[in-house]
Amino acid sequence: MMAEGTHWLPGADPFDIAWKLVAVNLSDLAAKGAEPLGVLLGHSLGEGDDRFLEGLNAVLAEYDVPLLGGDTIRAEGPRTLGLTAIGRATHTPVPSRSGARDGDHIYVSGELGRAMLGFEALKDGTGGDHEAYSRPRPLLDEGRALAPVVSAMMDVSDGLLLDCSRMACAAGSVAFELDSAAIPVAAPARFDECIRWGDDYALLFTAAPGVKLPVSSTRIGSVRTAGPGEARLTIDGKPVSGTLGYQH
Amino acid sequence: MMAEGTHWLPGADPFDIAWKLVAVNLSDLAAKGAEPLGVLLGHSLGEGDDRFLEGLNAVLAEYDVPLLGGDTIRAEGPRTLGLTAIGRATHTPVPSRSGARDGDHIYVSGELGRAMLGFEALKDGTGGDHEAYSRPRPLLDEGRALAPVVSAMMDVSDGLLLDCSRMACAAGSVAFELDSAAIPVAAPARFDECIRWGDDYALLFTAAPGVKLPVSSTRIGSVRTAGPGEARLTIDGKPVSGTLGYQH
Repeated sequence: MMAEGTHWLPGADPFDIAWKLVAVNLSDLAAKGAEPLGVLLGHSLGEGDDRFLEGLNAVLAEYDVPLLGGDTIRAEGPRTLGLTAIGRATHTPVPSRSGARDGDHIYVSGELGRAMLGFEALKDGTGGDHEAYSRPRPLLDEGRALAPVVSAMMDVSDGLLLDCSRMACAAGSVAFELDSAAIPVAAPARFDECIRWGDDYALLFTAAPGVKLPVSSTRIGSVRTAGPGEARLTIDGKPVSGTLGYQH
Repeated sequence: MMAEGTHWLPGADPFDIAWKLVAVNLSDLAAKGAEPLGVLLGHSLGEGDDRFLEGLNAVLAEYDVPLLGGDTIRAEGPRTLGLTAIGRATHTPVPSRSGARDGDHIYVSGELGRAMLGFEALKDGTGGDHEAYSRPRPLLDEGRALAPVVSAMMDVSDGLLLDCSRMACAAGSVAFELDSAAIPVAAPARFDECIRWGDDYALLFTAAPGVKLPVSSTRIGSVRTAGPGEARLTIDGKPVSGTLGYQH
């Protein structure tokens, strides 16, 4: 779901809203190595719907996904849009969030912080490139290629640290140990922000050492066994504190 | 999708909102003769969520349907909720809206106007029974039993007349000829309202003459060939005029 005021700025281009609504859902399919079969749209009618439809058609054409159905309503107040993407697994078992094991390597495919820079370019109105924020690209091909070889996978929608922490907790008695120098960020001077900002839709995954990866990826750390009282997420050996990312 | 102010009254019991959100989607599956596999919920967090969850659990338990996933957001203003129900066809071809043919009989399973009376009982606060409005019951068993024998089927969500008109238009060159005396209504003195009010979730279907129906149903008319200039919907031989039902 995406809501006016929460997920898009006032005055946002409805084309971009439609694009993002579809793209972020396709990104969830990408993280499962799934092939999209179609989407169902829950649409609150309103201003800019012609432009919304242009964006919807564009993103569906780009990823060759049909609109299968949905619902339209008229409602008061800020608009809320819902979308459900249906996909078919191309590899079973489907990659889970919880499969990381002691000794696995941690990887990310994509660069972190690009959406943050795009958001700022959009907000300050100086005409800078905001495509990474406005029209994210789900890594469908990469997800399908990775599905057979990863031990765990998810898309980085809420910030790298938060999503690493979720993966570590889902896996059980392990910690994610990250190496700051290895993490690919779009703005090195703002490293801490880049690894906490969401909306990048990179793929975060773990794989056993020695696995040959079929797509370009960066190793950012290792998975280690951790006891009950130990930190589940460290950077350069130190436990991570403070806000990890976008909580909602 | 359901939105505060449009699909539920201010102060409505969140239990009922959850029930209805699921039930109306299951009703769409019922009209296709489909077996529910699960639902995906798009939820705007807010007041009364504990009670909403009670209703959600109750309706999912009642129809033995799992919550497969979804999304939660925080948003400003009136709340909007979205739900996608996934089902598996139990008979192919799946009953369409467009299959009515000259000579078919028109049937309805269920009584029309019960939701209207329930809505009024709820609104006037006199403690009358409002279950037909607040907690509609999708006719899943009936839809599955009917799927192999109908020529067209849909659920009556927006009023009998409007949905008859949609079925006639979808079928092409036919008219739906209704017999007022045969239509089962909950409030005979308010016949015109009963056949225009929505939310009843009865099943409306057509079948060839001579077909043995597996569920209790009432024949309410016949399908006839109609030319380009002819009325697509008549009651007692007269074209229907004015508002047919709930347009949205």
